[in-house]
Amino acid sequence: MAGGDVDTVVVKCGGSPLLRRESVVGDVADLVQQGKRVVLVHGGAHEADRLMRELGRTPQHVVTPSGASSRRTDAEALDALTMAFAGRVRPALVAQLDRLDVPAVGLMGLDGGLVEARQKPALKVVEEGRTRVVRGDLSGRVTRVRPELLEALCASGFVPVVSPPVRGEENVPLNVDADRLAAALAGALGARALVLLTDAPGVLRDPDDPTTLVQAAAAHEDLLPFARGRMKLKVVAAGEALAGGVGTVAISDGRRVSPVQAALAGDGTLLHAEADPAGSEREVVL
Amino acid sequence: MAGGDVDTVVVKCGGSPLLRRESVVGDVADLVQQGKRVVLVHGGAHEADRLMRELGRTPQHVVTPSGASSRRTDAEALDALTMAFAGRVRPALVAQLDRLDVPAVGLMGLDGGLVEARQKPALKVVEEGRTRVVRGDLSGRVTRVRPELLEALCASGFVPVVSPPVRGEENVPLNVDADRLAAALAGALGARALVLLTDAPGVLRDPDDPTTLVQAAAAHEDLLPFARGRMKLKVVAAGEALAGGVGTVAISDGRRVSPVQAALAGDGTLLHAEADPAGSEREVVL
Repeated sequence: MAGGDVDTVVVKCGGSPLLRRESVVGDVADLVQQGKRVVLVHGGAHEADRLMRELGRTPQHVVTPSGASSRRTDAEALDALTMAFAGRVRPALVAQLDRLDVPAVGLMGLDGGLVEARQKPALKVVEEGRTRVVRGDLSGRVTRVRPELLEALCASGFVPVVSPPVRGEENVPLNVDADRLAAALAGALGARALVLLTDAPGVLRDPDDPTTLVQAAAAHEDLLPFARGRMKLKVVAAGEALAGGVGTVAISDGRRVSPVQAALAGDGTLLHAEADPAGSEREVVL
Repeated sequence: MAGGDVDTVVVKCGGSPLLRRESVVGDVADLVQQGKRVVLVHGGAHEADRLMRELGRTPQHVVTPSGASSRRTDAEALDALTMAFAGRVRPALVAQLDRLDVPAVGLMGLDGGLVEARQKPALKVVEEGRTRVVRGDLSGRVTRVRPELLEALCASGFVPVVSPPVRGEENVPLNVDADRLAAALAGALGARALVLLTDAPGVLRDPDDPTTLVQAAAAHEDLLPFARGRMKLKVVAAGEALAGGVGTVAISDGRRVSPVQAALAGDGTLLHAEADPAGSEREVVL
């Protein structure tokens, strides 16, 4: 596993306006100063939806039969999310890191053949109680990571800031879930820890009651019954990261001060590799 | 000068729909295969204007007293051009290179503190025959290039694909002219050649007569009287590149087949370092 000799942390920070991005960036700067190798992964569904509306388009979100929520990615949606991620979310993160003297480099999964994905043959969606199959969605599942680009950048002192889209077959760009992208990168880099920040304290037994945090689970499957919507994908991503060899995954509150430091100190829902034997099954089916 | 031991070529390809981008990309792939270090610089005024209109905004272009045309870059224009460059033009170039097995990495001048600029204190514009001063324009002049990021990427086998915006003071992103950005990068990398592709055969004595190509000039100043609009900035960029130590600058036709190979073989308007003594004046005032 590459990078086993360096302490590597992958941080995924979503685009929710509730997350304290400045504090996330401050934590990343501290980790870099401590000599750690850090990769920051971001999505930006909120910004992508905002841009869609500015362009007079209608963002479409669908629900899968298992209850996970997902974006319907047609060509117009992929165009908007690519522009929102690469042209709004990422430059802001790079500039914030730069202000803290951390030289950051924005990347898409497309760049340098970094991340490859296989297009989902069909998207099963539930609409008004009925399951329907949508074909041709421009989204996929990560099938391969070539970590050389990230390793070269980290070795030269840069912090990679990575987002979808990634490279599909025949070089067609595909959207992928950013949490699962972060999990794949963490695995390929042999990361010690993956921190998935969210706008909740972690996985909650009762999603409406923030006092019902599940602090730890023996296996990620144990968390699936509690996870709804976006959280379901975070739990799946956590399982994939553990299966990929990541030591610890934290699903933690990105709304608090120093969210990354807190997560690494045990805040949120924690999963450890040794406690998740089922994590050895690489493929998780939603 | 960095990279003096490697044969480095910087290619600037604009966003005009007339340019043969696939052929440019093919030439870049050939140069890479020949062991050359290549950096591709792009703008995308056409795409930026298109996105402005999609967003219901009005692109504003101004003319300076010397006759050069320039974009009026307010916050809305900078937002649109950042998204158009990073989210439309660049991913397409990266994917095209990827299809030819050239791993390319898209960058903004912002990334990794690559390019710094000083904001123009005031933009002098001519409107209906009268000169007016516009302040607060989010555009600047390149003041510094840190080539380490490009060198690290090239050394690892990647082709950097670079565009504005770049980093202004206090990390505010600024637009810069992409031709002059290419010139600054070529100088910092100690490039042998800079190829500025355009939608004309080169600098023409009579801009309306393509048979009046100026094939070579002793100094870039000799070309200024013929150059109008966008071409003026290309000539200025050529002078800056020569002053920065670049061996040869070609202002060549990007509409033809194999435009980069043709330019390197002498097609278009050529300027050589030894023939441009005035190039030693670093500052060119528009």
